[in-house]
Amino acid sequence: MNNKTILLGHGSGGKLSHELIQSIFFKHFGENDKHFPTDASLLHLPDTHIAFTTDSYVVDPIFFPGGNIGKLAVCGTVNDLAVSGATPLYLSCGFIIEEGFPFAQLEEIVETMADEARKAGVRIVAGDTKVVDKGKCDKIFINTSGIGAINPQHKHISYGDNIQPGDKIIINGNIAEHGVTIIGSRNNIKFADDLKSDCASLNLLIKDIMEASNSIRFMRDATRGGIATVLCELVENRNYGILMDEDKIPVSESVLGLCEVFGFDPLYIANEGKLVLIVAQEDADKVLDAMRKNILGTMACIIGEVTAENPQRVLLKTQIGGKRIIDMLTGEQLPRIC
Amino acid sequence: MNNKTILLGHGSGGKLSHELIQSIFFKHFGENDKHFPTDASLLHLPDTHIAFTTDSYVVDPIFFPGGNIGKLAVCGTVNDLAVSGATPLYLSCGFIIEEGFPFAQLEEIVETMADEARKAGVRIVAGDTKVVDKGKCDKIFINTSGIGAINPQHKHISYGDNIQPGDKIIINGNIAEHGVTIIGSRNNIKFADDLKSDCASLNLLIKDIMEASNSIRFMRDATRGGIATVLCELVENRNYGILMDEDKIPVSESVLGLCEVFGFDPLYIANEGKLVLIVAQEDADKVLDAMRKNILGTMACIIGEVTAENPQRVLLKTQIGGKRIIDMLTGEQLPRIC
Repeated sequence: MNNKTILLGHGSGGKLSHELIQSIFFKHFGENDKHFPTDASLLHLPDTHIAFTTDSYVVDPIFFPGGNIGKLAVCGTVNDLAVSGATPLYLSCGFIIEEGFPFAQLEEIVETMADEARKAGVRIVAGDTKVVDKGKCDKIFINTSGIGAINPQHKHISYGDNIQPGDKIIINGNIAEHGVTIIGSRNNIKFADDLKSDCASLNLLIKDIMEASNSIRFMRDATRGGIATVLCELVENRNYGILMDEDKIPVSESVLGLCEVFGFDPLYIANEGKLVLIVAQEDADKVLDAMRKNILGTMACIIGEVTAENPQRVLLKTQIGGKRIIDMLTGEQLPRIC
Repeated sequence: MNNKTILLGHGSGGKLSHELIQSIFFKHFGENDKHFPTDASLLHLPDTHIAFTTDSYVVDPIFFPGGNIGKLAVCGTVNDLAVSGATPLYLSCGFIIEEGFPFAQLEEIVETMADEARKAGVRIVAGDTKVVDKGKCDKIFINTSGIGAINPQHKHISYGDNIQPGDKIIINGNIAEHGVTIIGSRNNIKFADDLKSDCASLNLLIKDIMEASNSIRFMRDATRGGIATVLCELVENRNYGILMDEDKIPVSESVLGLCEVFGFDPLYIANEGKLVLIVAQEDADKVLDAMRKNILGTMACIIGEVTAENPQRVLLKTQIGGKRIIDMLTGEQLPRIC
């Protein structure tokens, strides 16, 4: 088993496909039902209002400190649903695998996905595997799509419709850890012990937040493009601006060091377990309290606020007292970060 | 525009990503709403019972007679939902694109997807684009996931729970056209004029079928592995068998010719617009009548029946009068057929 590799036949829809499904996918994801494999999974939702999302993962390397491509694929889609104010329920996963990929690595990835899904309380209910000839893809790509149930009263969270000047901007911990970990891994840099990807499912933290306040204005996980991109997108065509306080944005020493070496701005670096949250000023403390009780929010803090001044602009109050404009990322900073 | 190619930056989540989304995806798929891009699409379903499915498409070549990878991706997922007895409603699409891929080809693919979605009456509501370095994938891969609404009374269709000896097996037209077209394209074979992929959305044909009879026992689109694989999967661990009549299985002359040249058995060759349907004997004529009125079912015919004899076996009554066992495909017959 240990030397076994993926063959083109594992993607054929024939006998080898069936064996792969039985020996790896059903083993870890669980059989959806006792019937023979069907084309679609039949599900019953608690509500007719849903959130639906998709993401493909092509991260390089596929294994990194703090996770692997499978963990990323589950967390990323869970988070996209949760920040929309939805309760993530069901995921699909589509694998594109390069011929010759080791079975043992595939099993490790699938096992991680199953573990992470269990932790997040979602079920992986539909799947697909394609195998391409050696050299026609890079090891493994994974697509996850997801369905969540949403209370229609929470729809404004996804759009940020209720954002007002004075609202506070909160983050749940140190930024830029995923991106820097991936860059470091690619360059074989020995990390400080504490540096690893922050890859995590945020839905249970978000549940705590939603229970603490009825005045959540907006949530977004700050992935590709980092927290700068989230905030720049948010102020586009809006009649408010954002003022961030550089002093207050949590970044670890090791991340700052590596960003200096590589010439990267941590504000633009991808996170995979960081939530940018906007909440009414009067509820900020309540929300911070709730967040700090959750293992993924112990370092939660206010990093800025929504302003009536400078509409459509994100400004950063720098440590030396000046202000600089934060603009949207141009070009590709870090390819294949997720 | 015509010489423009995809850059790594188009997958960065920054400015170039936004431009790509505006200039190609929103242009053809339509903007989901007037809000800024969100992580998940918020939808309202007509019912809480749904079918959910996912498929990745890696077909090579990406353009072929009768379609392209985008048409395949929409039709394939629409069909997976429809054969489950569901009404397809919403699709997501995830693109993985090789750096340097021509913009014009991407737009052609996206336009085809939008056209096909319109024809099938489904909406493409969620998307994602990743770009990988040149040589790290083969041109373009597309994942489509889909959600359909299902009447819970139709759940047995997906599982084939009500199949009984005497039920008739129907197909809606000539088999093996997609697979043979792809093989031919790869080998630069000049086709007869009539040979092209049968790639089509079957949901409207299936609607006609469901309206014609309450005794539909099972439906499946015969993709990878062909009609043989569908029927072999179906009889696994069942107390009935299947007897097909070789004489009655519709195959065109050109497909038969190419299968002979390449040594392929058309029963195992992929279709992308062929439906294997099992219906109660007494409703077979009604269903055939309804199918023949639909452009995708004009050649609909009975190709075999469910038998009490030979449980767990698919038998083929051959043209010379013998019977042979049809077994599940071993190994990879045709890689990257879809």
